[in-house]
Amino acid sequence: MDKDPLLQLRVFDLNCWALRYLSKLRQERIALIGDVLSQEGFDLALLQEVWSERDYWELKKKLSSCYPSSHYFKSGVIGSGLCIFSKHQILDTFLYQYSVNGYPYMLQHGDWFCGKSVGLVELKIQDIVFNVYVTHLHAEYCREKDAYLPHRVVQAWELGQFIQHTSKGADIVLLGGDLNMHPEDVGIRLLRGWAGLQDSFTAAEKVEGCEDGSTLLPANCFTNQKEMQFYPQGIRIDYILYKGSSQYKIRCNSHVTTTGTVPGKGIPYSDHEAVVAILSVEKREPDKALNHPIVEPMLVDILNEARMEVRVGLLSAERQRYSCGRMAVLALLLLLMQGTMGLTSMFGRTMQPFPKFSFSLLGLLAVVVLLISAVLYLFHTIEVKILQGTEEQMRVGLQSLHDKLNSG
Amino acid sequence: MDKDPLLQLRVFDLNCWALRYLSKLRQERIALIGDVLSQEGFDLALLQEVWSERDYWELKKKLSSCYPSSHYFKSGVIGSGLCIFSKHQILDTFLYQYSVNGYPYMLQHGDWFCGKSVGLVELKIQDIVFNVYVTHLHAEYCREKDAYLPHRVVQAWELGQFIQHTSKGADIVLLGGDLNMHPEDVGIRLLRGWAGLQDSFTAAEKVEGCEDGSTLLPANCFTNQKEMQFYPQGIRIDYILYKGSSQYKIRCNSHVTTTGTVPGKGIPYSDHEAVVAILSVEKREPDKALNHPIVEPMLVDILNEARMEVRVGLLSAERQRYSCGRMAVLALLLLLMQGTMGLTSMFGRTMQPFPKFSFSLLGLLAVVVLLISAVLYLFHTIEVKILQGTEEQMRVGLQSLHDKLNSG
Repeated sequence: MDKDPLLQLRVFDLNCWALRYLSKLRQERIALIGDVLSQEGFDLALLQEVWSERDYWELKKKLSSCYPSSHYFKSGVIGSGLCIFSKHQILDTFLYQYSVNGYPYMLQHGDWFCGKSVGLVELKIQDIVFNVYVTHLHAEYCREKDAYLPHRVVQAWELGQFIQHTSKGADIVLLGGDLNMHPEDVGIRLLRGWAGLQDSFTAAEKVEGCEDGSTLLPANCFTNQKEMQFYPQGIRIDYILYKGSSQYKIRCNSHVTTTGTVPGKGIPYSDHEAVVAILSVEKREPDKALNHPIVEPMLVDILNEARMEVRVGLLSAERQRYSCGRMAVLALLLLLMQGTMGLTSMFGRTMQPFPKFSFSLLGLLAVVVLLISAVLYLFHTIEVKILQGTEEQMRVGLQSLHDKLNSG
Repeated sequence: MDKDPLLQLRVFDLNCWALRYLSKLRQERIALIGDVLSQEGFDLALLQEVWSERDYWELKKKLSSCYPSSHYFKSGVIGSGLCIFSKHQILDTFLYQYSVNGYPYMLQHGDWFCGKSVGLVELKIQDIVFNVYVTHLHAEYCREKDAYLPHRVVQAWELGQFIQHTSKGADIVLLGGDLNMHPEDVGIRLLRGWAGLQDSFTAAEKVEGCEDGSTLLPANCFTNQKEMQFYPQGIRIDYILYKGSSQYKIRCNSHVTTTGTVPGKGIPYSDHEAVVAILSVEKREPDKALNHPIVEPMLVDILNEARMEVRVGLLSAERQRYSCGRMAVLALLLLLMQGTMGLTSMFGRTMQPFPKFSFSLLGLLAVVVLLISAVLYLFHTIEVKILQGTEEQMRVGLQSLHDKLNSG
């Protein structure tokens, strides 16, 4: 029944965990990743957490013959960590940095410093236009009490909106990345529903590798065993998603994950497993052209659920802004009081009420607190604006969904 | 020869200069703007510098009957200042915040705090899909020594890229806003060339209002006369730009600017003049369909010129990052020295070398300098990454242009 596909595409996706000085056996693993990419000759390799540009250049040098085109996306303090190696020429690139991405003072988590983004490259393979996206969303550090959930939901929404708005000229859309969301999470349901993307794992004709397509395994020697204790089978948080267009359809022939250590070596490529999808592209028959994608009524519920998460985030951001504002005002009052006391003791006849040293130490403390809390007040004000803006965008989206459902 | 247009559209654009407490006669002018919008019943009103959401809500209340759909774009500390009032239902919205936008420590300029962005709304009028963009780029404070030129060029590039990538599904693209660029500036040539936009002033069949379409006039009672001394005719920095698609063509019948004070009132609407464009949309004849827009060889030169500006910005950002890093290291050294001296005098037998008060004041200074310079080091590191990334994006763009020109 199936006719031969126009095109078969092999796509590789991996979170490389390559942070200089902090990631274990980084150089050895980057070399192994380079080896497998070079041996396998995929059409596209979508990599995340290549934090060091030196690693990127090393890979580029090694892979220049099989992947003549590549791009590293720069953003944040460290760099976005995102890069793409492609067998086919990259025609254009674009970067969208998520408007919220954790907090700069959460130094132990560090997501803020990476400027988490979604990178887009445009390719043309056999005259078929491909929009290829690579991304990495904010990590989840504690599933039970996930303070970053609203930010991740906003990122998922922005990712969906970015794909929706930028892919209208594309015949095929591919997205690969570490989404830091379990398959049933609201963010991924929103992304899939809103952008109309299919999941290579659930849609694949053949699945190989880890059970449930997991990409974080308790058996991996680099993963935190404590975080994995409730997930003996592992978790799937790395995805390859895709969609076709009115002209072309795409399906997943095979979805494969690596399963721990590299054959013949004692270590895995990363603390994540790699995902490989073999996709085939076919021309859509004209009478079956999908000009108007079907709107699922369930999407309304998902969007409402996401909007609720954004509201929860908004309340928390408003609380934090209030606390920072209050702290700044208190520090300012303390400084004013100290100033008055200093002037009184200088020009007046009263004795100095404090020893000079403690007095100036207190002043130092007040200045530092004032500076830090003023900066954080600004930071949380921006966060509040963005969350309010996202909620409003979602409201407009809901209104359009309702209209489409009613007219459909 | 001309057939009747399918659709005629009247678009209004104005930088409203409505900053609470700082802009003169703000409330009176907002009321006048509301009056003219309500009397004229434009199809679209694209407003900038509506910094206060209260002003937006006041306008919304007043205009709800003639402009049933509207959107305010939120970003930055103050808000983007961008909003759109539309006679036609807004179907979707999206916001892209420019990745560079001045410096937070330039408090007197304040652009950084606005989170300068481009807002997109999608409309459908008589089944024709419109992508309408509203934006406001970084201001130019000193044309002779414009420290913000690289940032503005990056913004113009990102604006062009955003429009290019998001408008492929649109039949008609409209952009209105205060671009803070003179018509011959590299940024506007880049934007027009890269995104293929036409300028309503130069393309209009009929032009009315100020000479050369100026939107900043020396005669305006709110403008800074000193800044205008070399421009007795005024400057044109507010634009309405547009393009059609393979299906529809669009032309400008008339371009009108306001000319100072509102008739019958003693004051103008703002420190900028408003721009009104009357545009007509026609179906393109199938044999004249423009599937592949013509690539102008001149665009290569413009892109090279813009890339050079980005490089100048990169050098300056690297210098500033270096200065901040050096300052932070010096402050840290001073603190360490003070700590050692303090400990020596506490446990050793030596006398304290400084009076306690000056000693702790010096400590305070070192802490403040360390904090501020560390934050600025991070800020300039991000700036460097973005400028490097933009240069690389432009390089990919140039490569594609060369390929197109060679194959064409």
